[in-house]
This record gives sequence, C-alpha cells and structure tokens, in this order.
Amino acid sequence: MTYNPALRERAANDVDGQRIAKGYSWQQLAEHLGKPPVWTVAALLGSHPMTAEDAERIGALLDLAPETVRALQRQPYRTADAAIATDPTVYRFHELLAVYGPAFKALIHEEFGDGIMSAINCNVSIARRAHPGGDRVVVTIDGKFLPYEWNAAE
Amino acid sequence: MTYNPALRERAANDVDGQRIAKGYSWQQLAEHLGKPPVWTVAALLGSHPMTAEDAERIGALLDLAPETVRALQRQPYRTADAAIATDPTVYRFHELLAVYGPAFKALIHEEFGDGIMSAINCNVSIARRAHPGGDRVVVTIDGKFLPYEWNAAE
Amino acid sequence: MTYNPALRERAANDVDGQRIAKGYSWQQLAEHLGKPPVWTVAALLGSHPMTAEDAERIGALLDLAPETVRALQRQPYRTADAAIATDPTVYRFHELLAVYGPAFKALIHEEFGDGIMSAINCNVSIARRAHPGGDRVVVTIDGKFLPYEWNAAE
Amino acid sequence: MTYNPALRERAANDVDGQRIAKGYSWQQLAEHLGKPPVWTVAALLGSHPMTAEDAERIGALLDLAPETVRALQRQPYRTADAAIATDPTVYRFHELLAVYGPAFKALIHEEFGDGIMSAINCNVSIARRAHPGGDRVVVTIDGKFLPYEWNAAE
Amino acid sequence: MTYNPALRERAANDVDGQRIAKGYSWQQLAEHLGKPPVWTVAALLGSHPMTAEDAERIGALLDLAPETVRALQRQPYRTADAAIATDPTVYRFHELLAVYGPAFKALIHEEFGDGIMSAINCNVSIARRAHPGGDRVVVTIDGKFLPYEWNAAE
Amino acid sequence: MTYNPALRERAANDVDGQRIAKGYSWQQLAEHLGKPPVWTVAALLGSHPMTAEDAERIGALLDLAPETVRALQRQPYRTADAAIATDPTVYRFHELLAVYGPAFKALIHEEFGDGIMSAINCNVSIARRAHPGGDRVVVTIDGKFLPYEWNAAE
Amino acid sequence: MTYNPALRERAANDVDGQRIAKGYSWQQLAEHLGKPPVWTVAALLGSHPMTAEDAERIGALLDLAPETVRALQRQPYRTADAAIATDPTVYRFHELLAVYGPAFKALIHEEFGDGIMSAINCNVSIARRAHPGGDRVVVTIDGKFLPYEWNAAE
Amino acid sequence: MTYNPALRERAANDVDGQRIAKGYSWQQLAEHLGKPPVWTVAALLGSHPMTAEDAERIGALLDLAPETVRALQRQPYRTADAAIATDPTVYRFHELLAVYGPAFKALIHEEFGDGIMSAINCNVSIARRAHPGGDRVVVTIDGKFLPYEWNAAE
Amino acid sequence: MTYNPALRERAANDVDGQRIAKGYSWQQLAEHLGKPPVWTVAALLGSHPMTAEDAERIGALLDLAPETVRALQRQPYRTADAAIATDPTVYRFHELLAVYGPAFKALIHEEFGDGIMSAINCNVSIARRAHPGGDRVVVTIDGKFLPYEWNAAE
Amino acid sequence: MTYNPALRERAANDVDGQRIAKGYSWQQLAEHLGKPPVWTVAALLGSHPMTAEDAERIGALLDLAPETVRALQRQPYRTADAAIATDPTVYRFHELLAVYGPAFKALIHEEFGDGIMSAINCNVSIARRAHPGGDRVVVTIDGKFLPYEWNAAE
Repeated sequence: MTYNPALRERAANDVDGQRIAKGYSWQQLAEHLGKPPVWTVAALLGSHPMTAEDAERIGALLDLAPETVRALQRQPYRTADAAIATDPTVYRFHELLAVYGPAFKALIHEEFGDGIMSAINCNVSIARRAHPGGDRVVVTIDGKFLPYEWNAAE
Repeated sequence: MTYNPALRERAANDVDGQRIAKGYSWQQLAEHLGKPPVWTVAALLGSHPMTAEDAERIGALLDLAPETVRALQRQPYRTADAAIATDPTVYRFHELLAVYGPAFKALIHEEFGDGIMSAINCNVSIARRAHPGGDRVVVTIDGKFLPYEWNAAE
Repeated sequence: MTYNPALRERAANDVDGQRIAKGYSWQQLAEHLGKPPVWTVAALLGSHPMTAEDAERIGALLDLAPETVRALQRQPYRTADAAIATDPTVYRFHELLAVYGPAFKALIHEEFGDGIMSAINCNVSIARRAHPGGDRVVVTIDGKFLPYEWNAAE
Repeated sequence: MTYNPALRERAANDVDGQRIAKGYSWQQLAEHLGKPPVWTVAALLGSHPMTAEDAERIGALLDLAPETVRALQRQPYRTADAAIATDPTVYRFHELLAVYGPAFKALIHEEFGDGIMSAINCNVSIARRAHPGGDRVVVTIDGKFLPYEWNAAE
Repeated sequence: MTYNPALRERAANDVDGQRIAKGYSWQQLAEHLGKPPVWTVAALLGSHPMTAEDAERIGALLDLAPETVRALQRQPYRTADAAIATDPTVYRFHELLAVYGPAFKALIHEEFGDGIMSAINCNVSIARRAHPGGDRVVVTIDGKFLPYEWNAAE
Repeated sequence: MTYNPALRERAANDVDGQRIAKGYSWQQLAEHLGKPPVWTVAALLGSHPMTAEDAERIGALLDLAPETVRALQRQPYRTADAAIATDPTVYRFHELLAVYGPAFKALIHEEFGDGIMSAINCNVSIARRAHPGGDRVVVTIDGKFLPYEWNAAE
Repeated sequence: MTYNPALRERAANDVDGQRIAKGYSWQQLAEHLGKPPVWTVAALLGSHPMTAEDAERIGALLDLAPETVRALQRQPYRTADAAIATDPTVYRFHELLAVYGPAFKALIHEEFGDGIMSAINCNVSIARRAHPGGDRVVVTIDGKFLPYEWNAAE
Repeated sequence: MTYNPALRERAANDVDGQRIAKGYSWQQLAEHLGKPPVWTVAALLGSHPMTAEDAERIGALLDLAPETVRALQRQPYRTADAAIATDPTVYRFHELLAVYGPAFKALIHEEFGDGIMSAINCNVSIARRAHPGGDRVVVTIDGKFLPYEWNAAE
Repeated sequence: MTYNPALRERAANDVDGQRIAKGYSWQQLAEHLGKPPVWTVAALLGSHPMTAEDAERIGALLDLAPETVRALQRQPYRTADAAIATDPTVYRFHELLAVYGPAFKALIHEEFGDGIMSAINCNVSIARRAHPGGDRVVVTIDGKFLPYEWNAAE
Repeated sequence: MTYNPALRERAANDVDGQRIAKGYSWQQLAEHLGKPPVWTVAALLGSHPMTAEDAERIGALLDLAPETVRALQRQPYRTADAAIATDPTVYRFHELLAVYGPAFKALIHEEFGDGIMSAINCNVSIARRAHPGGDRVVVTIDGKFLPYEWNAAE
C-alpha cells in the first residue's frame, strides 16, 4: 500500500525545482514560515505534514501547483530509504551510529535508567561552528527521555 | 576475514562483567581515564583502540585478564551490526536519520557547499537536560566539514 | 505476477483523495457503511474485497471513478510491504512483536496448547482511552485459537 | 558489538529448562513475582532487565545458577530476530500488521493527530475469551499516544 | 533483462479484467479450453505458454486485445515473486514447506533413493472436500521421481 | 531470543544418528508410534512437540539420551530456514509455489470465497505411485478452509 | 546510475517482438550474422555491444526502429538480475554451481594452479545430443585459465 | 533444521586434511574409486552421498575417522552458499549465467520446446585444452532435456 | 525521498545520447572543460554537481536540453547501486576490495595510525600502460589520510 | 560447503597475535619474505596461498603453530565479507566505487574497448605521499586489460 508516498515525492520535486528557479535558500523558506530550518526542509521534502496555512504561504512564495500545496498537507509515510542512506553526506551519520550506538545505549541507560530517547518528542538542529582547523558541522538532537513504563496505563 | 572482532568482543564482555561486579559506572571509568564518556565506552566496547597506558590503567582498576588488556589495544574493525540497530534505544537514532537525513544533506550543502561532515574528525557527547515535561537526552555531534576537493592533492 | 496490486493501489489513491477533498473522516466512511472502522479503512486501502453494494455506496458518497468502484471489489493480494513497516507509526507495532513475540508464543501455548491465534478469523479495533498522563491508544486483537490438528480431516 | 545477548540467551535457557523440570507454568512464575504475565515472560526470556530482588526471588524458586540471576539483571539488547518472526504463532501477528498497518496509521492520525502509539510507555496483555465457535485469544495493547512535538524542548 | 515479463503481466491484467466484466469463472475458462483448472489459470496469469489455438479461443471468448492473444503464446519467465509469497492465501503453502520440507526430503530419499520430485513433469490439482467440521481444500501434487543419475548420459 | 531451537536441533541429530546406527527407517519409526509418517518425521526433526509417551517410546527404541527425550517434548520454534529451501529436493516445492501460487489463490477464492487453506488444521502425506514412465511422488495437502470472518467473535 | 539499461531493454523487446512477428528463429538470426548462436542471442538481448554493421544488418532483416539499431551498439551494463535467476530453465544452472562449485574450484586449482577460468576470454555453446533415454542439452564453456599473477606487470 | 550439514562439513575437512597430509591429488582419489573427478570431489566435499563401499575404500586410503566414513554416506543437504559464490574462481561461472542465462533460455526453448535441462539427470566434467594463447578450462554440462509435461502422470 | 536522482539520471541519458550522436569521446569532453577525465565523466553521469559555467559549456557543445543543463548543477545523491556493482567491468574492483581490503586496512593503520583515507579529499585517475604481455589499466587513488581525531574540535 | 575458511581464519589470528607479541610490523614481514607488502598481508590474512618455503620462513620468524604453517599453504576461499565492508577504513574504497564506478567503466571501454581490467593478473600497492595539507594515501591498482574475446579459443 504505497498510495501516498508518490504524492509527497512529486510535491518535493515541485518545491525544490521552484526554490532553485526563484533563487531561495532553504534557510529563507524557513524564515518565511518562522519555523526551524531542519523541520522546514524535512516537511517540504515530505517527512512532516504542514498546516494549510504554512502550505499555502510557501505555495504563494514559490508559485507551487495547487496539487503540491494539497500534498504538503497530507499525512506522510516516513519510510526509511536504503538508497539514500548510502549517499556520503547521509552515510557518515549512519556510520557514527555503528561506531557509537552501543555507547549511546550504555550511557543513556546509566544516566536515565531503562528507556529511550524519543524520536517523536524531539527536535534537531544544525549549526556552523567556526574553527581554525576548518569549520565544523554541529548537529544537536534533543529528545525527551522515555522510561519503559509498564504501569503507566493504570 | 573476521579474524579480530571476536577478540574485541570477548574483551568487551570481560570489561562489562567486571565493571558490574565491582560496581563502577561507565562515567567513573571515563573519569578514571580522564577521557570523554562516549569515547571511553566506545573504546571499551570495541570501537576504538586504546593506548597501552589507558588499557593497563583500566585493567588494573577492573582486574581484567591480560588477554583483555592486550585486546583493548588492538586496532578494531568498526563493523555495522544490523541486529544492534534494531534495539529500541539505538533504533530511534536510525529513525531520526530516515526522517531528517535529506534535510541534513540539503542544509549542509547549502551552508558549507558540496561535502560531508567528517565522522572521523568528529566527537560526540550525551548530556541530560532537566525539563519540566520530563528530562531530555541531548546528543551533540561535532564534526569537521570536508569539502569535495579533487584538486587538494596537487 | 503483480497484475492486480496496481489496481487496488490506484483505487486507494482515488478514495483517499476524494475523502480529503470532500471532507470526510475515515470514521464517517465506516459509519456510512455500518462497518467497523479498522475493517473499513483496511478495505478501502486495498486489504479486503468489498461487496458490490458497499463499493457502490462508498462510490456514490465520494464520487469515485467507476474503475475505482470495480477495483474495490477485486480480491486483493495482501502483500507485506517492507517500506511501510519502517513508518514510525507502523514500526512501533513491529517493535512490540520483537520485544513480546516470544512471550506471546509461550503464553498462548501454555494457555491453549500447541497452535496459533488465527489472523483470518480475527478482528481488530482501535480505541482512545483518556488518561491523566496523556491519552492512550488501545488496540485489541481478538482471534480464534487454532490448535495444530493433524487428525481433523478424518 | 553483540557482547551481551549471549548472556541473556543462556539465562533464558536456564530459566526455561528449570521451569519445565520443576513443573512451573509461566503464569505461576508471574504470580510468584506479582507481575503481569507478558512482562514476566518477556523479562525471563531476555527482553527486560529485572530488579535484583525479582531476579533472586525467581532464582530461588527455580534453583537458577548465580550467573543466570546476574544475567537477568543485565540491561538487554532487544533486537529483532528475523527467524523467530517466521514461527507460525508469532508470524500471524506480523501478518496482521501487513494487513491492518495502514489502517492503524490512518485511524491513529485521524483520532489523535500526527504521532505514534508509544511502544515504551505501553503494556500488553493476553486473555482467553470463551466462545461457542472456539475460544479466542484476545491481545490488548495499551500505549500512550505521543504527538510529534518539535517545540516540546523549549 | 526483464524484457518479456511486462508483456505477460499486461496480458494477465487484460484476461482478468475481461473475465470479471463478462462474468466467467476461472473454472469455466478451463472447461472452455478442456484443460485442467490449475494449468489454465497459471497459463492465463503468465506461468505457461499457450498454443495459438488455445490463446485464440480464450481471446474470442473474452474479447481480448490481439496483443494479449499474442502475449499468451510467449515463452514466459516463471520468476519467483517475494511479494506474492507474503499474501496470506499463498503464504500458508510456504509455511507448510518450512514445517514439513525436511520431512518431505527424508521420506522421498527413503522411499525412492537420492533424487527429487520433478516440478516439470508434474501436475497439480485443487479440490473441495466436504467435511462436517468445515469444508477442506485438498491440493494434490503429482510429480515424477528423478534419481540423481550421473551416468545416464552414457 | 533463539533459546530453544538449538535443543531441538541436537535432539534431531541424536535421533537421526541412532536411527541410522540401529538400522530403522523413518517409516518404521512412524509405525512404531502408530502415527502418520510425515507427522512423525517432522516431529522427530523438530517441527512438532511430542507427548511424553511418544517421546519415551521412541527414546527406548533408539536408545536416545534423556536430554533428547525431554527436548522432543519441548514446544518448538518452527522457523523458516532459507538455506534448507535451496536443497534441490526441497526447492522443487518452492518452485511449484512460484509457478502455481497465483493459480492456487484464484481457484481457492473462486471456490470457497475470501480466505485461506489452514496450515494448522491440516495434514500432509506422501505416497509412491507406480507409473510406466517412472514412479511418481504424490503429495497430498488437506487443510480446512478458513474464511475471513471479521464478525466471528461476536 | 541506471541510465542505459532501459535503452538496451527496450531494444531487446523490439528485437524479440519483430523476430516473432516475422517468424525468424534465433538460430536464423545467428546464421544471418554469421555469428555463434549464444553470442548472437546474448547480444540481441542486451549483454554484448554489436558493431554498427551487425546492428544494421539485423535491423534491416527485422525492420527494427532506428533507436533500436543504435541501442544495440551501446556498451551495455551486464548486470545480474536476481529475478531471472529464479526462472526454472535458468535456475538449474545456478543449482549446478551450488552443487559442483567447490569441486570446480578444487579441480581447477589442482590442474592449473591458483587462478580462475576467464569469463571474458571465454565462449559458450549449446548443442542437442540425441539419446535413447531422452535427448540432452550439452553446454560447453571454454575459457582461458588465468593464473594469479602479481608480478605480471613488471 | 540444519541438523546434518555440520556432519558433512566436518567430514569434508577430514578428507581434505588427510588428502593433503598423505599427498594425494583429487584426481588420484577419483581414479582410486573409478569415478569421474567432478562427481568424486563433489561427493567428498559433501554434495553427494557415497555408497558404503566407496566411503570405506576412501577411508582406508586416507585413514579417515570412522565418523567421517559414516558421514560420507549420509544423504546431504545440497544448500546454496552465498559466501562461496563470491570466491573469484566460483564467481566467474555465476557471472557467465548473468551474461548468458537469457540466451541459454531462449535457445533451449527454441530447440527443445518449453522445458529445462535437468540438473539431476546430468553430469559435469572439466578438461584442460592446450592453446597457444594460454591453456583453457573446458567445462561440459550434459543434462537431459525435460519438457513441461502436465499430462505425463496419466 | 528519491526526489532528485531521476533528474540526474535523465540528464545523464541526454548527455550520453548526444555525446554518441555528435561523436565526442569522454576524453574530449574532459578536455573541452579542462577537467580531469574521471571527474568529468562522474559529474556528467550524475555523481558531482557542475558549476553553471561548466554545465552551460557542455550544454552548448552537445546541444543539451535546458533541463539537462540545470540538472547537471543540482546537488546529487551519490547512492550506491547494487545492480551496477554486478557489471563485470565494475565488479572486478569490488572483488579487489574483498581480496585486499583487510590488507589495505592493516597497512594504512600501520603507516599512518588509526584513521582512514578520505574519499572526499581524494582524486582518482585512470591511465593506460603499454606492456608486452598486454596493455594494462592503471588506476590511482590519491586521498588524504584522516586520523581519528576526537579532540580536534577543541 | 565452508570447509576451509575456518582454517585460514585461525591461521590469520595466530599470525597477527604472534606478530604483535614479537613486535614485528607487517612491513617487516614483507621484507623478510622479499615480497610486496599488500601481497604479503593479504596472504597472511588468508587471501592467497603461500609456498611451503614462505610459510615456513614466516613460521620460524613468528614461532607459529605447525597447523598455522600448513594452513597458510591451503588454497583459500576468497569470499566477500559484508561486515568487513562496513569498517570505515575499508568502506571509503567501496564508496569511491559507488561514486566513480560508472566513470571507470566508461573510460576503460573508451580507451581499451569492450572488456575489463583483470583482478587476477593485477597487483596493488599502497604508498605514503607527503603533502603540506596532510599526508596522503596513494593506492595504485595495475591490472591487465582483458578484451571480451569470444573467438580466442579457436
């Protein structure tokens, strides 16, 4: 049942094509919406549903097709794409998880107890940090700790 | 040719067993070495080689077998383990990459140009942030930006 | 031989597009048919064949193409889609099976003997349960126990 | 780095072997601990860490090796095992997700908004329901709804 | 080189669509050709080439496109489709092989010696058997035993 | 959590080794138990649990280790093994499903309605049929039809 | 980067469709070119580039589209297709490699030393051999032995 | 259920170790048995069962353990091993199938009709052919053609 | 989210088709741009973004569609394509890594310490080396060594 | 049939352990044998067979077990190991093939015609190149070009 990913993908193509044609940066689109950049790009590329207001505002700015504006409001499937994971820019993050995943797990359990960092109640940001040895990408992931709570339902 | 992973794995088991038996936290082991916690746990679980001095210091503290102390100094294979990636505490980070990977890529290219964040010249930390809605796990990844440089060799 | 999934998929797209355009909730569609919500959505998204009467009733309400109305009556292939399984809302249920699957198996065998819970003679419902700590999703699966019966044919 | 799953697996074997040898049902073990049956079996088979008190109580009842009692307290890797997913008793639940997963997703989003049912703040139970057409297995999953909350960290 | 499967698939779609539109059962198509039902359906869905005579007779009955009539005569690729194998009606047969495959192997070798049951010199039938506990599907596979014959070429 | 398959596998090895050493055919073991041959071999190779009485009777005949006799009574994981599926004697059955699976599906739905042939309430037999062109293996699968019954629980 | 396989595939479809429509056997096409049959069919189905002369000669005979004639001259990607490998006629050759691959390896190394049979400096033929027990397919593979030659570059 | 491959593997190791220790070539073992070399090596490496007489004769020559002599007579699982398929000496044959598989299929169907070359009633040989450009490996596969015969059972 | 690979792929097709139609070699295109050949081909086939100036220069030479000229400037996804890796010309390089990968790793660590050869700050060239035994392909990879530098961020 | 890889793996472990214990670099082992470093390490880690003389010379230097000395002479399986390919030091080379593979293919075909660079008649070296921006790893692959030669056998 892959009935809606194609809609979001076509929308992402329309957004990116118009963005380039009109000369907007992703950063500018985020500012136009007053939303964080990572959230904005993720939403425009199909990983988050947008409100009607946001979708129309971006549609007006980029002169998007009405179909695109509607598609941006669709609840998306956030599926993992194995091909994208092999792109070098994306792959380095997966490699970090292979190297540091067990350490993340050990330290989270030690500090917080048995549980996880939520990927839902969570935000992510990217920043540039100037450095004499070469500027650095700083990614910050900030997610709520969720303890395994069997009895929380009572 | 998987000739050395088994050595590092046995060492990790010895370290973790002795650590629990003697009542040390991972945090304490890191402090004992004067090294960052994520690096320390990753090294002790087999993702980084340790210096002879560090390996012996931790060996003395935890009463590790000589074989373990030697194994901790071996250059490791840092292989990706598909089973570990399904552990819920680890999986949430992979899920974040599925959701935000294309946004990371778009924003890194926009800000820095064509290239990647290094996973080698990079460090990682985990912190606890108190929050009225529930404390939060904050992961910071700080890696040098590497531009695609075809001519750098000249 | 994937000759019919495409038909059902196109039908699902038509249904969902018209549903949104006309402002109906899935719940309302289920009530219009007098059928349980999970069954109704599953059928409209391609996992169950509908009777001609139900297909036409929903077709009239949503102004569906005749092709869609016919497709909804086609016997579907209920194939497992690995991509959909990675969507976070769907994935959590798969994760629960990884964590509790062996316990389900042990307790079913202990209580009922050697056999399975039928996934065919079975129904599924979703409910909202108000809770001071945050409302809860309650999923109930109710399937007939089927014992391994080698001699039942005699 | 699969350094601890083997420990939990050996513990599960010891628990199950002693349980059968001494004639206890899983239900009785759960009652002995005063814990829900699904939680108890999952913990004893390696999916949850036990408190020292619980581990020792079950160890005394079943005459478990000290190594087993310690292993039951280890923080486990809750990895997904593709082979177990093919066991018919377990597979039927995966099949249900293939058939109803998209419907679960549609109805959860419609009722609660964009988000997931937590698999962490969640409990699971199994009950027998007498039925003239053959008794039925009733599985109830009760998990907290978690909305995508980008701004929750502020 | 998937140059011809698409042709057979389009043919199967045309056959099935016309069959439903004209109200014929598969059984009736088999009778019209005077061929066994399993063979007939397999051929019409793309697993066997048909003679020109059979293809034209079925084309006349169902008013098929000339392209379809030609495609039904093409030598097909009989490829295994992993998605179809997950459809519950098909999957149960695969599950039976997982459960009984080693027993089939042991008993065939014991009765016939080292060799296989041919899947080429073989036929398959499906019958309904009335039963007070619920009617039963009876599948019969009848294939020639082929011994490993290294010297048969001499 | 693969805690019990190893036990059943060791038992299968013990059974098969003793069977060969003592010169019994599988057929004779089935007759000794008064059970159908396919069921008997499947059970002894680890796909069905045996009663204490059957396990002891076969243990006495073959002089099996007490551990084996106990293991034969364990509730097994009936997991699908991809390697075994490539053995030529077993593979031919999988190939038949690739060729005839869609035809099975179409004819079962046409004759019985929407549903499946049970793989649980089901038995399987193998027979030899003399034939002038070479003797034939005849496999008969006899399983109860199960209709999709959403309302059966009421 | 799958930019050219589609071109070769469309060409193969055009060739095969015209070949059937005009009533030529593959054997006749090979004779028309004065090339070995296996080479000719492989080239026309997309596994070898053809010279302009050969492509035009076959184009004239079969009345191929100019696009097809050009595509036949394109340097192909000779990619392995897992689906085709499951076709029974093709699969038997893969099965032979599973059964005899290690023997091939042992005997090649014993007779020729450490190295391989070239799949590049190699030809392949198929012949029919009459036999009273049923005619036989005889496949001959004739490839140059290549020793591992580390120093050949000097 | 992989209960017997380990036995055959241990036997293959014993055979190969003793063969090297005693200085016999595979060719000599084949001559000692009076069997074709490919068959002999395949059998000794675990792909064919040997008669008691052959197993004992080779056992006496190589001073094999009694366990090995018995294992060589066991009916083997002839499973496909994906790792072995990547060895360069073996891989070249798989590559040839990727390049020429569709041509084999087209020419076999054209010459013999719809069917396959048997991999069971089949033999395989390897020869050295002297050539001024470098000696060549010549592999000959000689298998009986088997037509798809639905009616053969009558 | 595969929203841009299709654009680059269509561009690659346009480039290659026009290149052949106009009779340019890849080498000539590289010279026209004054760029290294491997870089040029990689960029034109979709693995590197081109500057507007380069894209337009090549567009003018080859008479490319404006869409192609724009696509060549798009930041690409450099995804790994498993099918391409099986093409024999490409596969040999992968095979070399299977054979020599662990040796590369051992020697790099020994010579440079713990770290990697960058695939980003890296260039690659191909040359022909005349040789009496047959000309040789010489591939040179020249990448900066990157040490694991946890503290580089300070 | 994985009957010999374990032997080579154990040998590699013995070699590497003794090498470290006795303080030899890989470079020194290569010099001791008078062989190229990449070849030497590959052979000692199990990718090439050694002559008896070389194996004994390295055995004497490192005080290896006689079993190891024998194993180093065994003809190895050079299998591709998917886990090793994920080690960052090894992975970068695979990534380069994903990025430049199609360019390698296009340029080799353009310069040499249809064919491959041999991975058998091939050698590989690694060198350090001093560079003000950081020293560089230079890998040189030098392999004979092999044209597709169908007629070479004549």
